[in-house]
Amino acid sequence: MRNLFGDYLLLTLHQDTNGKLHQRLCRCLRKAIIEGVIQPKTRLPASRDLANELNISRNTILAAYEQLRAEGYLETRIGHGTLVVENIPESYLSTAEFNQCEITRKVQSSFSLSQRGFNLLEFASAPTQQWGAFFPGTPDVTEFPHHIFSQIQAKLIKTPDIDQFLYSQIGGCFELRSALVDYLRVTRSVKCDVDQIIITEGIHQAIDLLSRTLCDMNDPVWIEEPAYWGIRNILRINGLDIKPIPVDSEGIIPIENPEQSPKLIFITPSHQYPLGSHLSLDRRKKLIQIARKNNSWIVEDDYDSEFRFSGQPYPSLQGLEKDSPVIYMGTFSKTIYPSLRIGYIVVPKSLFLPLHILSTELYRGGHLIEQKALAEFIREGHYEAHIRRMRLLYGKRREFLISLIHRYLGKEFVHEYNDAAGLHLVLKLPNACDDVAVSINAKKHGIYLRPLSQYYMYSQTTAHKGLLLGFACVSEKDTLVAFGILLQCLREEGIATIN
Amino acid sequence: MRNLFGDYLLLTLHQDTNGKLHQRLCRCLRKAIIEGVIQPKTRLPASRDLANELNISRNTILAAYEQLRAEGYLETRIGHGTLVVENIPESYLSTAEFNQCEITRKVQSSFSLSQRGFNLLEFASAPTQQWGAFFPGTPDVTEFPHHIFSQIQAKLIKTPDIDQFLYSQIGGCFELRSALVDYLRVTRSVKCDVDQIIITEGIHQAIDLLSRTLCDMNDPVWIEEPAYWGIRNILRINGLDIKPIPVDSEGIIPIENPEQSPKLIFITPSHQYPLGSHLSLDRRKKLIQIARKNNSWIVEDDYDSEFRFSGQPYPSLQGLEKDSPVIYMGTFSKTIYPSLRIGYIVVPKSLFLPLHILSTELYRGGHLIEQKALAEFIREGHYEAHIRRMRLLYGKRREFLISLIHRYLGKEFVHEYNDAAGLHLVLKLPNACDDVAVSINAKKHGIYLRPLSQYYMYSQTTAHKGLLLGFACVSEKDTLVAFGILLQCLREEGIATIN
Repeated sequence: MRNLFGDYLLLTLHQDTNGKLHQRLCRCLRKAIIEGVIQPKTRLPASRDLANELNISRNTILAAYEQLRAEGYLETRIGHGTLVVENIPESYLSTAEFNQCEITRKVQSSFSLSQRGFNLLEFASAPTQQWGAFFPGTPDVTEFPHHIFSQIQAKLIKTPDIDQFLYSQIGGCFELRSALVDYLRVTRSVKCDVDQIIITEGIHQAIDLLSRTLCDMNDPVWIEEPAYWGIRNILRINGLDIKPIPVDSEGIIPIENPEQSPKLIFITPSHQYPLGSHLSLDRRKKLIQIARKNNSWIVEDDYDSEFRFSGQPYPSLQGLEKDSPVIYMGTFSKTIYPSLRIGYIVVPKSLFLPLHILSTELYRGGHLIEQKALAEFIREGHYEAHIRRMRLLYGKRREFLISLIHRYLGKEFVHEYNDAAGLHLVLKLPNACDDVAVSINAKKHGIYLRPLSQYYMYSQTTAHKGLLLGFACVSEKDTLVAFGILLQCLREEGIATIN
Repeated sequence: MRNLFGDYLLLTLHQDTNGKLHQRLCRCLRKAIIEGVIQPKTRLPASRDLANELNISRNTILAAYEQLRAEGYLETRIGHGTLVVENIPESYLSTAEFNQCEITRKVQSSFSLSQRGFNLLEFASAPTQQWGAFFPGTPDVTEFPHHIFSQIQAKLIKTPDIDQFLYSQIGGCFELRSALVDYLRVTRSVKCDVDQIIITEGIHQAIDLLSRTLCDMNDPVWIEEPAYWGIRNILRINGLDIKPIPVDSEGIIPIENPEQSPKLIFITPSHQYPLGSHLSLDRRKKLIQIARKNNSWIVEDDYDSEFRFSGQPYPSLQGLEKDSPVIYMGTFSKTIYPSLRIGYIVVPKSLFLPLHILSTELYRGGHLIEQKALAEFIREGHYEAHIRRMRLLYGKRREFLISLIHRYLGKEFVHEYNDAAGLHLVLKLPNACDDVAVSINAKKHGIYLRPLSQYYMYSQTTAHKGLLLGFACVSEKDTLVAFGILLQCLREEGIATIN
C-alpha cells in the first residue's frame, strides 16, 4: 500500500495546482477517500514517513490530516495511528448517485459530450457502493468456492487449446452453451438446443445486442414500471422509445390493443424486479398472444430465478408454448459473482445465425477460458451445489430481516408483492414520504438504501415509495446493526415506527 | 469427445426433420464440420459405435459417412478409421466470409432484423478462421507464459479482495491503470495520469464508447482508407457518417479545410493498418492543428506499436504536444492474446469523469481479477520480457517470409509502405487482379489470405490490390509449406511469378 499510495498522491498532487500545498494535499486525500482509492478503515502512513516519501514538510502532512479529521474523513485511534473512518461523510459521489446534476454541471462546463452521451449522463445510476447493508443485487461473493473455480482454470491452462485464446466464435464456448442447454432444461424448463444460445458479457450486453439488432431508432419498446435502471439506459443510448407499463401483484399488466406495436417487451416474469411479484399464468398467455399478434419479441429476464426460498419454482415463460416469440436472458452475476461477466441469451432458431454473427462483429468476445471453466464447474455439479448452499443462506438472512421488520416496524412495511425469492426485499413506505431523502440520510450513516421511486421512469407521478433492502451479502450480525441505523433514519424522516 | 459428439448429433438430428435419416445425419455432420464443432483431422467414431449410441442402424451411419467422403469432408485412412479432412472444402462459412450475400438472404427470408442490424450484417467481416498461415493480427498465443499469468491469478484468488468480484468502478482496476501510466510513459511517450485511463474490453468497446458518447447520429468521422473493418462496423451501428481519408507513404493525408468538421479522427499513426506506413511528423502536427481548429478528437489507435523490429520506435502522437485533443487507444490482444479482452483508452482530463461514468453505465465492466493479475504481470517485468522475446521471434519470421517473397516472387511484391513492424505484411498485387478470388481459392487449399481490397470502404473505386500475410502465428516450417500453396494460387489466378 505504502508505495502505491505515495505514487498516487504524487500523481494527483501534480494535477492540482490551486492553493497552498496542505490544501492541495487535503483535496487529493479527500478525493482518494471518496473515490475509494483509499478504502474505509485503511491506516494512513505516519506523517513522518509520508513526509519523507513525498519530500514535503511533516507539518504540511499534519495540517492536511487535521483538516480531514475535522471534516470527518479521518479518525485517530491511540495505538492505531490515523485511519480512514468506516463510514465516510456524505460525499460528492454519494450525493451524485441520487442526483447527477452536480456531475452533469461539471461536465457541461468542461466539455460538450454528444447529446446522447449527455442524456445518458443525466440518468447515470450505477452505484459507487456495491457491498454491505443493504445493497440489493450483490450475492455473497465470499461464499463462492473460488479455489475450485481457480483450480479448473489452472488445469485448462495446462492443457491449452489454441481456440481458447482467440476471439469468440459462433456464440461463445461450445462446452458452456452445451452445459447451459441441460441446466436450463432441468432447472428452468427452458427448451432449447445448443445452437440457440449466445454467450454475452452479461445482461447489459444482451440488451444492447437485442436493441441494436432488432430495433431501429424511435421504435417503441415496453419495459415494466418499475424496472431495473440499467435496461432504460441501454435503450436510451440506442434511441428507442421506452414505454413503461405498470405492474401489479400479478406482474406486468399487458395492453391488449396497443396503438403502436412494441418491438421488444422486457419482462421479469419469475420475480418482478424490483417489486417481487410473479407473472400469473393468464398474463403469460395473454402476453405471448399480444406478442404474436404484434410481431413483438418478449425478452424474458430471469435474473435471479435460482433463489426461490419456498414453494414451487415457477417455470420459464420461454418453455410455456412451442415456438413462442420469446428471447430468454440469464446471467451468472447473481449466482457466482458480478465481475465474472458471463451471461447468455436463448434465442429462437431463426435469430441464432444473424445474432451470433452480429454479436461477434460488435463485441468480438473472448474470455473463453473462463467460459470453459464455468462449463466444467457446472458439469461437475459444483454450480448446483453452490446454488443450494446459497439458497439456504440467503433464505435464512431474508427471514431474519423480515423478523426484524415485523418486530420493529410492523408487517405492513413488507411490500405485499414480495415473495420468498431473490436477493432483496422491498420495504414499503407511505407514498407521501421522500424515499430519496431517507437514502441520502442513510448513506451519511454508512448504510446503503436504494429508494424504490428511482426504479420508476415517471418517478414523480406513478412511483410508489419504499426502500430496497438487499440481504444476500450481509451477515445477520451486520444486518442487526444496520437495521438499527435504518430505524433511526426512518424516525429522522418522520416515518412512524410502532416500537 | 464421444459422448459430447453423440449428444450433439442427437440434438441437431432432432432439429432437422426433412428427408430420410441418412440425409439428415449427413447434413448434421456437414454442419458440425463447417462450423468447427468437429475440428479438422478429428477421428470420427466407428460406424458400429455411433450406431449404438444414437440407436439407429449402422447402414444409416455408413451412408452418411460415404456421402461426406464423396463431398470431400471426410477421408478414410487404413488403420486410422474415418477422419475429418485437414482442409475442408470451400464451405458455406468460408464463402460467407468474403461474401455475406448468402447469409443475408437466408436471414431476410427467415426473419426481419432492424434496418441497422441488417445493414451491419451485410458488412459482417469477423473471420471464422483466426489461426495459421497467413492469418493477420493473431499473435503466437502458444508462446505466452500462461503458467506465470495463471499463478498470479491463483495467488490473487487466495487473498481475495471483495471489490475484485464486483462490477468495475472508476475506469477499471486501479493497479492496472497505474501500471499502464508507467508503461506507456516509458515505451510510448504517452503522458498521462492514472485518472486519465479507462480500461475497456478491447478496441471494439473503446470505439463504441467514444462514438456513442462523443458523437450523435450522422456526425461526420474520419477514418483511414484503407482501415480495420471493425472500426467501420462499430461506427455504422452507431449511425455515424464515415468519411474515408486516403493514406500514402506518410500516413493519412489530412484535409486542411474540411467542409464539415469531423467529430472524431481515427488514425493508426505508428503503423498504418493494414498498409504499414508511419505518419510523418509534419502530418502529425498538421493533424493536431486541424483537430484543434475543428474541435475534433483524434483517436490514436496504437494497436501493435510494440512490435517494431528495427530502427527507432516512433513515439505516440498523444505525447507530441501539450493538451492536444488526442485520445490514445491500446489493447493487449496483440501482445498477450485476443480472448483476454483487455484494452484501454487514455483520455484528456476533461473527459475522464463523464467517460468513466458512461462506460460503467453502458458496459458495467468486471474481469477485475484478470486486470489485477495483468498489473502484477507488468509490474514484475514479465510483460516486457515477453514482448522482447516476441519481437525477436516475429522479426525472424517476418524476415523469413520476406526472403521467400524476394526469391520466388520478386521485391516488387512487397508493398512499399511495409516497414519492419507489426504482425503482418502486405503482398502487393497488380491492380487489375482480383485479390478476393485469390483468397477464396487459397481457402480451398487450406490457407488464409485476407484480400487488401476488403479493407477499403470504397473497394470498387479506390482499392489497391494485395494480400495480407500474417506471419506472427506461423512457424517457419509452416510458412514454407503455405508459401508453396500461395505461389500455386497466384499462378492459378494468372498472376506472374518470376521463378
